[in-house]
Amino acid sequence: MPWDVYLAGEIHSDWRERIAAGAKEAGLDVVFTAPVTDHGASDDVGIAILGEESEGFWKDHKGAGVNAIRTQTLIRQADVVVVRFGDKYKQWNAAFDAGQAAALGTPLITLHPPEHDHALKEVDRAALAVAREPEQIVAILRYAIEGRL
Amino acid sequence: MPWDVYLAGEIHSDWRERIAAGAKEAGLDVVFTAPVTDHGASDDVGIAILGEESEGFWKDHKGAGVNAIRTQTLIRQADVVVVRFGDKYKQWNAAFDAGQAAALGTPLITLHPPEHDHALKEVDRAALAVAREPEQIVAILRYAIEGRL
Amino acid sequence: MPWDVYLAGEIHSDWRERIAAGAKEAGLDVVFTAPVTDHGASDDVGIAILGEESEGFWKDHKGAGVNAIRTQTLIRQADVVVVRFGDKYKQWNAAFDAGQAAALGTPLITLHPPEHDHALKEVDRAALAVAREPEQIVAILRYAIEGRL
Amino acid sequence: MPWDVYLAGEIHSDWRERIAAGAKEAGLDVVFTAPVTDHGASDDVGIAILGEESEGFWKDHKGAGVNAIRTQTLIRQADVVVVRFGDKYKQWNAAFDAGQAAALGTPLITLHPPEHDHALKEVDRAALAVAREPEQIVAILRYAIEGRL
Amino acid sequence: MPWDVYLAGEIHSDWRERIAAGAKEAGLDVVFTAPVTDHGASDDVGIAILGEESEGFWKDHKGAGVNAIRTQTLIRQADVVVVRFGDKYKQWNAAFDAGQAAALGTPLITLHPPEHDHALKEVDRAALAVAREPEQIVAILRYAIEGRL
Amino acid sequence: MPWDVYLAGEIHSDWRERIAAGAKEAGLDVVFTAPVTDHGASDDVGIAILGEESEGFWKDHKGAGVNAIRTQTLIRQADVVVVRFGDKYKQWNAAFDAGQAAALGTPLITLHPPEHDHALKEVDRAALAVAREPEQIVAILRYAIEGRL
Amino acid sequence: MPWDVYLAGEIHSDWRERIAAGAKEAGLDVVFTAPVTDHGASDDVGIAILGEESEGFWKDHKGAGVNAIRTQTLIRQADVVVVRFGDKYKQWNAAFDAGQAAALGTPLITLHPPEHDHALKEVDRAALAVAREPEQIVAILRYAIEGRL
Amino acid sequence: MPWDVYLAGEIHSDWRERIAAGAKEAGLDVVFTAPVTDHGASDDVGIAILGEESEGFWKDHKGAGVNAIRTQTLIRQADVVVVRFGDKYKQWNAAFDAGQAAALGTPLITLHPPEHDHALKEVDRAALAVAREPEQIVAILRYAIEGRL
Repeated sequence: MPWDVYLAGEIHSDWRERIAAGAKEAGLDVVFTAPVTDHGASDDVGIAILGEESEGFWKDHKGAGVNAIRTQTLIRQADVVVVRFGDKYKQWNAAFDAGQAAALGTPLITLHPPEHDHALKEVDRAALAVAREPEQIVAILRYAIEGRL
Repeated sequence: MPWDVYLAGEIHSDWRERIAAGAKEAGLDVVFTAPVTDHGASDDVGIAILGEESEGFWKDHKGAGVNAIRTQTLIRQADVVVVRFGDKYKQWNAAFDAGQAAALGTPLITLHPPEHDHALKEVDRAALAVAREPEQIVAILRYAIEGRL
Repeated sequence: MPWDVYLAGEIHSDWRERIAAGAKEAGLDVVFTAPVTDHGASDDVGIAILGEESEGFWKDHKGAGVNAIRTQTLIRQADVVVVRFGDKYKQWNAAFDAGQAAALGTPLITLHPPEHDHALKEVDRAALAVAREPEQIVAILRYAIEGRL
Repeated sequence: MPWDVYLAGEIHSDWRERIAAGAKEAGLDVVFTAPVTDHGASDDVGIAILGEESEGFWKDHKGAGVNAIRTQTLIRQADVVVVRFGDKYKQWNAAFDAGQAAALGTPLITLHPPEHDHALKEVDRAALAVAREPEQIVAILRYAIEGRL
Repeated sequence: MPWDVYLAGEIHSDWRERIAAGAKEAGLDVVFTAPVTDHGASDDVGIAILGEESEGFWKDHKGAGVNAIRTQTLIRQADVVVVRFGDKYKQWNAAFDAGQAAALGTPLITLHPPEHDHALKEVDRAALAVAREPEQIVAILRYAIEGRL
Repeated sequence: MPWDVYLAGEIHSDWRERIAAGAKEAGLDVVFTAPVTDHGASDDVGIAILGEESEGFWKDHKGAGVNAIRTQTLIRQADVVVVRFGDKYKQWNAAFDAGQAAALGTPLITLHPPEHDHALKEVDRAALAVAREPEQIVAILRYAIEGRL
Repeated sequence: MPWDVYLAGEIHSDWRERIAAGAKEAGLDVVFTAPVTDHGASDDVGIAILGEESEGFWKDHKGAGVNAIRTQTLIRQADVVVVRFGDKYKQWNAAFDAGQAAALGTPLITLHPPEHDHALKEVDRAALAVAREPEQIVAILRYAIEGRL
Repeated sequence: MPWDVYLAGEIHSDWRERIAAGAKEAGLDVVFTAPVTDHGASDDVGIAILGEESEGFWKDHKGAGVNAIRTQTLIRQADVVVVRFGDKYKQWNAAFDAGQAAALGTPLITLHPPEHDHALKEVDRAALAVAREPEQIVAILRYAIEGRL
């Protein structure tokens, strides 16, 4: 049975693609899942499907609900959760996903540059590995799944 | 792996068929489950299989037990629970199913016309989306499963 | 340690008072909890505390959220949940509370007149007792807590 | 029994004091808990108790571990979790705590100014109330605990 | 905090009294709970409170429901479950209680004469101790609670 | 996905074969599991694999342990548990299995003749159906799985 | 409410006394629990209460069962589990207790000299703090409970 | 569906190979999983993938984290956990894995020579079988999976 790995967090760089490409090249038996990474679709999904809202707060609320149907289901199914923190935006939802994984007892890996180490110390403490590059995630998954360095 | 979506509630309109048709047309990888929607069979199943009862209360009790073997199993297996509230009948069992989904932490979607909004406010608050038409359910599932609007 | 009994459902009759009076007279070691039974306060609490809304749906949504902070906490702490279904209104939230109790494995007692038996058969099947009068609830609690008829 | 309310997040303003003062004035039966809010102590606790580290990452790691002994215990005991997001810092640990509360099914209230609404939409969607001022938190707790506006 | 010990099973001998007397003499900080041991009350409680039934099956069913409100609550609260199997009757409910304790992970002690060893081997395997006399139960509790032989 | 149905209890009649034959004839998508029904193997397995014992109690203990590796795994995987009580033997392990299913929240069906109704009232109360003949079990499964009488 | 801290592991040095003395001096609101630390009593309890055994294996088995009634109950009630690994004996039961705490999600602290670091790396990884001296445990508890260094 | 059996513990003898060979010869439908048994890889994986460390403690810590991603996932998926204790090394991680299995309620089998019986009495008490040779594990699995001696 393939491993189910949820890739949470940053949606403005190619880190998911690099992990997927590396895993494919390594021939790993893994299925990657993720939130919707099309920023516009993710923001608009609530009103696009369920109807317009005059206030931004409720537009966001509706959209976040629909997104959560996807993300909650995938996070609960995941064997491993990888959370990427990038340079842009507040990315509170990335940390929120990490908190869910921690409370569920699902192995957690964080991926971020050293400049965020201090701000992320609580999240990193709950993680089983702190990686800097997507290729390290591939190496970790290869080791975890196939048992070889 | 297909998503498992339980369609709870109203059994006197074609909302399940419209969702199933829409999902098929959209090519979604989803398995729909539901309670037995043949009203007569659902009412009579207890005495039909387990023997007559002289009192209505125990006839209902027996039938509800057999139905629960099906519904409890399917609700617990579901990735998403959709609950439809219609105009006829009290539909307390629809709200009861919604309460189970909420307590299990399973994503919940409600489907009902605006005139029930006030009466359903507690149930809707526990839901991740409140839809008006079956086609919106299809759109939500497409987004949740395939990640596209 | 006193038993914690949550009294869910109908807020337009004196059934809670009758149970409380009976339990007091019987000297039972029990703490009763309940949702806010002031209908107006319950409807308005969201906008009263968190600010006005122009649409009824979001007014209800805000209010239901604040009410849920109280009801979810109390339902989860309860040793026994009693749910009253009356003649007025849809009372879907009563059935919703019953569904939560059932999924949590908390002993459930329903209280309603016989004319709702058929509509409530699924909820009654999940209950350990179906009572008609508040005084029967007191007798059940006395038996459960003190072990005497 | 008093309600147990965990106040997570921002440690650079007086919001906790305002909530505590308001709850005291209102005579609420509530116990507030919180992470250690002395920033220096929180940062240094690992090396102060368990010995020096030459690298910042491991200093943080040690400290975050000791802090988690406190915060994990208190979050798991809480009846309600309030999470404050302020203007300074990344506050990923606030969102991380919110994720834990959500996964545990503990009622969650967020407290933040409107300018963070969009960035916090996923966290707010999982919350039962979104407040702007500490006094609103007091009002919510009074309503939840005592059932009066 | 006192230990909560549920004494399940046989109601036709004085084993509960012997355990209670021994624990009192030893000064143990323990609260004993039990099903209703008045056989007549236990059999009749359903119809006595909730109304007559013409068929024995439903009379039993009603009574078992009311008894379960007591027993399920007490079993779930217990720190330790002791189950006594005697010579009379089938005592399937004793084994049923033992199965619940085992599934809940609650420490289980059985109390029965050697002639039932073979018939009870599955239940005994799930137990942490198999005792022959009530006085051994007292000795086990003294050791478990106070740490002395 | 086929339904997983565990058939617990009596091993001295052909009830399992009758259910299996009926389910096959009805074309049900179901996998039946069961304890080892070879009485001699079940009794001897402990010493046969793990070495002789001089005392009957420990022979039983060893055997019950090995049997539990099978039965605990299968009971936890089951969607539905059917428990048969027959005329011979004490069958406490059947009631023990029923208690585990009840505590796990797995739908439970009992199968026994009316003469055991009073002795089994607690177990039957926890069951969703009480059947008299194996063919009724087949009819219940057909209804639960395929939704037709 | 006092914190409940279980002190697992080594029973041949005075580390528990040093922690208790330090906590008392610091005035901490904490209750310490522990396995029975009288080695002889712990070894003999099974046969002393439940009867002689001719084979050492079953003597140990009986004793370990009675000890587990105490230790399982206390570990499950603990807010924090401290595990001490000393120089003598294999102390597999200390690591076994640590594994239980980890699986239960209870904060874990280990206490051992550096020479065991490599052998204990898996256990230490699951711990939130690795201490060398009992006084460090006191300092950690003071920080966790009272929030001061 | 094949049974999932996790083989924990000793990595310096051929016991896993003997079990795998025996299971293959017996044609059992079983998937064996295990920690990484290449001692060097297991020790170095942290620094090999995530970067050098100057101190042994943190090198071990990093490595143990990456190993835990594999072992935690596999232990949680296992139907049965077998733990081997050998003569060399402290093998605290073997006992740690056993503690996790016990707390998760997963059937546990231990495999060790009689000279460790006394030191392992707590772990053995939590196990459903104590085997001496790998071939006994194969026989137990054949019995548990196929129901034949």
